[in-house]
Amino acid sequence: MRLCRFLDQSHVGLGVYHDDSVIPLERIFTTAGLEYAKGDSLLPFLPGGRQHTRLRKAVAELPQDGAIPMDQVKLLVPVADPGKLILLAGNYAKHVQEGGGKAEERAKTFPYLFMKPPATTLTHPGDPIRIPSVSPDQIDWEIELGVILGKECSRVGESDALSYVAGYTVVNDVSDRNFRPNPTRAERPKDGFFDWQHGKWHDTFCPMGPCVLPADECDDPQALSLKLSVNGELEQNGTTADMIFPVAAIIEFVSHFVTLQPGDIISTGTPDGVGKAKGKFLKHGDIVEAEIGPIGVLRNPVV
Amino acid sequence: MRLCRFLDQSHVGLGVYHDDSVIPLERIFTTAGLEYAKGDSLLPFLPGGRQHTRLRKAVAELPQDGAIPMDQVKLLVPVADPGKLILLAGNYAKHVQEGGGKAEERAKTFPYLFMKPPATTLTHPGDPIRIPSVSPDQIDWEIELGVILGKECSRVGESDALSYVAGYTVVNDVSDRNFRPNPTRAERPKDGFFDWQHGKWHDTFCPMGPCVLPADECDDPQALSLKLSVNGELEQNGTTADMIFPVAAIIEFVSHFVTLQPGDIISTGTPDGVGKAKGKFLKHGDIVEAEIGPIGVLRNPVV
Repeated sequence: MRLCRFLDQSHVGLGVYHDDSVIPLERIFTTAGLEYAKGDSLLPFLPGGRQHTRLRKAVAELPQDGAIPMDQVKLLVPVADPGKLILLAGNYAKHVQEGGGKAEERAKTFPYLFMKPPATTLTHPGDPIRIPSVSPDQIDWEIELGVILGKECSRVGESDALSYVAGYTVVNDVSDRNFRPNPTRAERPKDGFFDWQHGKWHDTFCPMGPCVLPADECDDPQALSLKLSVNGELEQNGTTADMIFPVAAIIEFVSHFVTLQPGDIISTGTPDGVGKAKGKFLKHGDIVEAEIGPIGVLRNPVV
Repeated sequence: MRLCRFLDQSHVGLGVYHDDSVIPLERIFTTAGLEYAKGDSLLPFLPGGRQHTRLRKAVAELPQDGAIPMDQVKLLVPVADPGKLILLAGNYAKHVQEGGGKAEERAKTFPYLFMKPPATTLTHPGDPIRIPSVSPDQIDWEIELGVILGKECSRVGESDALSYVAGYTVVNDVSDRNFRPNPTRAERPKDGFFDWQHGKWHDTFCPMGPCVLPADECDDPQALSLKLSVNGELEQNGTTADMIFPVAAIIEFVSHFVTLQPGDIISTGTPDGVGKAKGKFLKHGDIVEAEIGPIGVLRNPVV
C-alpha cells in the first residue's frame, strides 16, 4: 500500500496511491469508524509515525467507493519541506566509469555527499523541469532511490539503520553538466568541483514522487529495479543491488557526523545511462519518466 | 535598532536588542497603541516584511520600562528555519593564501558556494559548539557576515541586489579541518573536496546571532569590522571591505541560478586568522566570541 500527497481543489490531501486513482485517508479512516486528524504530512502515517498503527487498522476495510481518478488530482512531492535533502555522487560503479572515473570497492572508499536547496529544487510529479536560461545546453537526468527518514537518528550501525526509514520514493537528480560561470576566469584547482556542485542547484532540479512505499512494505531496498526513459526511450536500466554503499551503510555513514531527523531525504545515487555519457541532453518538450519497481513512475515534462 | 528572537519562559519572543537587555516588540507596540500580532519570525518586522513600517512607527516612542535584562532571557538564532543556508568558501584573499591557495581577483574567478544543513548546524547564541567525537582534533572557527534575505529574488543585478536584504547577522562557520572517513581508503581525486565539505556539516557547526541589524540601518555592508577571539585572545581581525565578492555581487551571482527566498541565509566567507594556519584548534572549555561592528557579539562555549 503506497501513500501520496495531493492537491484536491485547494487543500492538501493524503491518500492511498494507486496508479490510476487516489483514496483519501480521511475517507478510509471514516469508513473504518476511526477519527481522522487533518494534516498535510505523510510522516505520521509512515513507520516511525504516531498514526502508522491506526492507519494499518483503518485500511483493513478499504472503502468500496470514494477513490478519486488520478486525472482529477494534482500529486505533490511526498515530503513538502525536508530539513535536509542529501544526495550521493558516484554510488554505482558503472556510472562512475561512464563519467570517466575509477570506482573503488566499498572497503576502499566512502560516500560522497552533497545537498540541494529543497524549497527551490523539489518539483512535484507532473510539474516541469525548467531548463535554466543561464546554462541550457547540458541538462541531464539521474534516477535515484530516495530514502525518507522517519525517526531521529544519530550514530546508528548498519544492522539497525533501516529501522529509522519511513519509506522510499523516486528522485530525479537533474544535473547541469556544463555550468561554468565567468568564462574568462583564471582556472583554479577547485573550479571543476564547484561548477559540478552549483550545477545541481538550479530551480526545479529535484523532481520527487509520485508516492511513498512505506519501509515496512519494502522487503529489500537493495533489490529494486530503476528505469528512466525520455520520450519513451529507455536511457537508464539498473538495480539498487549495484549500489556501492547500500541504503543501510549510507545511513550509518551520514548519521555518524550529522543527526538525521524525520522527513530528511537521502537520495542514493544513480546507475549508469545518464545523458552526458551519450551526448544526449534534455530539451523543451521532452517527457522524463523515472520508475522504481514497486514505487511507481515519476513523470515530468521539460520546458 | 537591532532586533532579536529570544525565549521568555517557554514562548518565543521578538524584541529590540540592546547589549544588556531586550525590549519585547509586544510591549513596544502596546505602548504605541498599536495592535501586535504574535509570531515567532523576525522577517515581518525587517525590510521587505509587512510589519516593517508599523514597527518604525511603534519605536518612535520606546517604552521607558519593560526591558528584560539579558541574563533573564535566552537568545535564539535570528532565523529559526532558513530554507537555504548557503556559505562562501574563500572570499577574502588573505584567508585563501593562509590556506595555501592562490587568490584571484574578482574579475578572474567566481564565488565558491556550499551549504550546511540548517536544522542540525544552527546554534543559538550561548549554546555550545560540540566537538564531534568522530573527529575531534582540528575544529576551527570562521567569523562571517551573514546576510538574511527579505524578499524573493531571482536574477537581480548587483546594483539592485541589496534591496532584497532584510538584515545582517554574525555567523561562525565552524569547520572540521581533518574529517577523513575510512583511513584505509584508496585515495581518489575528489576525496579532499568531500572531506572538506562533510567537515562543515557536523551538528552545532553554525552558531548565528546574537541579533539582526536591519538592512536599512546598515549604511555599507562592505565597511564592517570582523573580530573573533578565543578565550579573550584575538584570532581574526578583518573588515568586510576585503571581500573579493561584496554582498551585492554574491546575491547577483546566486540569484542567477537559484531563486532566493525570504529567510534564506548567505554567509559571505571569512577573513584570515583561522586556527588551521596557526596550528590552534578549539577544545573543551573554550569560549568563542565573534563580533561584527554594529551588530554585536556572538558568544559560544565549546564542549
